[in-house]
Amino acid sequence: MSDLWTVDPREALRAGEEFDLDSLDRASTPGFTGDKAAAETLTAERGKLLSELQERLFANGRAGGKRNVLVIIQGLDTAGKGGIVRHVMGMVDPQGVALRSFGVPTAEERSHHYLWRIKKALPKPGLIGVFDRSQYEDVLVVRVDNLVDQDVWEPRFAEINRWERTLVNGGTTVLKFALMPSYDEQARRLMERIDRPDKRWKYSTGDLGTRSKWDQFQEAYADVFRRTSTEHAPWYVLPADRKWYPRLAITEILTRALIEMELKWPRVRWSPDVQRRRLAKTMSPELYAESVAETAGIVQKSIDASMDVSLEAAELRDAHADDATRESAIAAIESRRAELEADLATTLEDKQALLEEMAPDLAAATAATIPASADAIAVDEKVKDKAAKKSKTKDDSKKTKKKGKKDKK
Amino acid sequence: MSDLWTVDPREALRAGEEFDLDSLDRASTPGFTGDKAAAETLTAERGKLLSELQERLFANGRAGGKRNVLVIIQGLDTAGKGGIVRHVMGMVDPQGVALRSFGVPTAEERSHHYLWRIKKALPKPGLIGVFDRSQYEDVLVVRVDNLVDQDVWEPRFAEINRWERTLVNGGTTVLKFALMPSYDEQARRLMERIDRPDKRWKYSTGDLGTRSKWDQFQEAYADVFRRTSTEHAPWYVLPADRKWYPRLAITEILTRALIEMELKWPRVRWSPDVQRRRLAKTMSPELYAESVAETAGIVQKSIDASMDVSLEAAELRDAHADDATRESAIAAIESRRAELEADLATTLEDKQALLEEMAPDLAAATAATIPASADAIAVDEKVKDKAAKKSKTKDDSKKTKKKGKKDKK
Repeated sequence: MSDLWTVDPREALRAGEEFDLDSLDRASTPGFTGDKAAAETLTAERGKLLSELQERLFANGRAGGKRNVLVIIQGLDTAGKGGIVRHVMGMVDPQGVALRSFGVPTAEERSHHYLWRIKKALPKPGLIGVFDRSQYEDVLVVRVDNLVDQDVWEPRFAEINRWERTLVNGGTTVLKFALMPSYDEQARRLMERIDRPDKRWKYSTGDLGTRSKWDQFQEAYADVFRRTSTEHAPWYVLPADRKWYPRLAITEILTRALIEMELKWPRVRWSPDVQRRRLAKTMSPELYAESVAETAGIVQKSIDASMDVSLEAAELRDAHADDATRESAIAAIESRRAELEADLATTLEDKQALLEEMAPDLAAATAATIPASADAIAVDEKVKDKAAKKSKTKDDSKKTKKKGKKDKK
Repeated sequence: MSDLWTVDPREALRAGEEFDLDSLDRASTPGFTGDKAAAETLTAERGKLLSELQERLFANGRAGGKRNVLVIIQGLDTAGKGGIVRHVMGMVDPQGVALRSFGVPTAEERSHHYLWRIKKALPKPGLIGVFDRSQYEDVLVVRVDNLVDQDVWEPRFAEINRWERTLVNGGTTVLKFALMPSYDEQARRLMERIDRPDKRWKYSTGDLGTRSKWDQFQEAYADVFRRTSTEHAPWYVLPADRKWYPRLAITEILTRALIEMELKWPRVRWSPDVQRRRLAKTMSPELYAESVAETAGIVQKSIDASMDVSLEAAELRDAHADDATRESAIAAIESRRAELEADLATTLEDKQALLEEMAPDLAAATAATIPASADAIAVDEKVKDKAAKKSKTKDDSKKTKKKGKKDKK
């Protein structure tokens, strides 16, 4: 499916030094050869991966990791900013997203430096922050509407670049998206808001005033791209006449950015065996025996699901890489799988040993019914070899396995 | 599908004066006769309706309406609070949800009244606020852990009731949900967090300390239900051993609460014809003619979708009502449909008239291709009659029509 991208969307959409906004075809779909239906299927598919990776980011934040993501969405009225929030960010656990929308500054906000309200809204570690409009309004509408003089807004380009540099240095991945529909498409969308009784609340009589300054806004946007599309925080400029294209492209770029972060489940500082023994003391022997019997199934399934996510991520990242790169990525994942399966073998041994202490009669019955546990080999190296072998034989079936989390009941 | 609810879940789950927490079967599914698969299907179906109604709430907030919703979610570790946020609130546009999670108070929060941080986090008009834990921690963990004396926490019940009363008077619908799994189920879930490397980050070594006070917490919860389940802000107590049940029940109750609010698309203060004329001046005659030709299709589809939502809502609300109530609800919706279709007829006339001024040659061509527009009758009463008739013949096909919004391209 991702073969429908002939180029990595980050390359296709990034505003480089040569970028010319005037020549951007607003109905085009750079890098993508599929149609609307294909795009929607791919967006949903990628959304699942995005959601899994977001959970890892969140987990790392909880465990003290400093990294997070800041998604900036810019565009004029009707450009589709709300649709991105709804359809892209809506695919992710709301607990992992910090959404902030910047309107006309309040009196308090105006009394501070223009970055004051922006800094206050930065996402916490582990979160994906989403800005619907941003500091860029202070070099866009502020410039076009002459709210301050040029000698005030002009230095902001450099100031914003420096400030974003400190953000990136602090562990934030900054992704800046500009939604650019055509002048005609904006008219169609405004007309729809006027004509449809269920959309009229979205229309403001001020929208036509902004539309009348279309050329000035395009010029201001062109300057933004020219002067603030940096190595550390590039602009992705999205033709937005077809709503499905920016949704797909932003989902893709955000997913790929999370892949680059190489997020792993955080390690914990406590001993599973110690905690398990404390917990088991609060359980009846029967309940604990039931838990022992279920362990292999539950944990193996979670390992498989987690490795499926890692493999899917690596596949996407290395789609155009050479064989050696791809093989080494897969080897790293398989080695991680072996580690997790060795952890599972230890878990099974520990749980079985504890059951033998708690209720020897139940332990005998349980041991007979769990092959994985019965097979568990005490010598570490052997366990790892076994797990590695096991994981290899599983490779073929991986693709067809159902992903995602299941309820226990 | 909703026939699987034998009782309105609000009745089945509401903690009344007779409520006895000790006798609550934590694996039961009060009022619902379906299984997990049926529950998941129904949750998703209801989620679509919820999402549509939420947009109306949001629109009303934007138009100056004061109403909003506050969802309070309480429960001990592993009760499933995060799952509710992810799976229920995740079905709604993130822009319409204000999520706030209350942990151990910060030093600043502790220096204020316990309601200070709660009040600061209240949702703005038009939003659904979601509190993951809440002011109730101040009569739960604070009580069980003896963080303050009884003469301090005891008066809080009455204080919270009074405060919630002012919230409700101000236009907030307050829904309080308590997720109550069994002691054994908590052990299973904690064990899974210890055993699964991808879940360990969710486990805290303090969780077992809280578990050791299970009985005190149950007692404290029982008092919360007894003393703060009021007419204006009732508690819904959810057996939570089956994760799918609280997800379904909360989706249902939230949806039904939004239905009770009888949300309509807000009316606007500007004249569509005036705005349309201003907008048309920025369009080429060809583009405007194209817009005229598309109008009937686009707007009629949106009217049908909107009325489908209203009908689905009325059906759910009146499932157990008498025939007269049901008929009068449907009549109200049909009258609203007639109003909207009269609005459409006016729109078509206005647009066609404007096209005739702008480009008479194009107007002739367009008029020939749009039956609805060509049929439009100038006399107001006749337009309404026609719209009403039209809507009646459409009734039968309504149920099978595809709902939801489509991209234009």
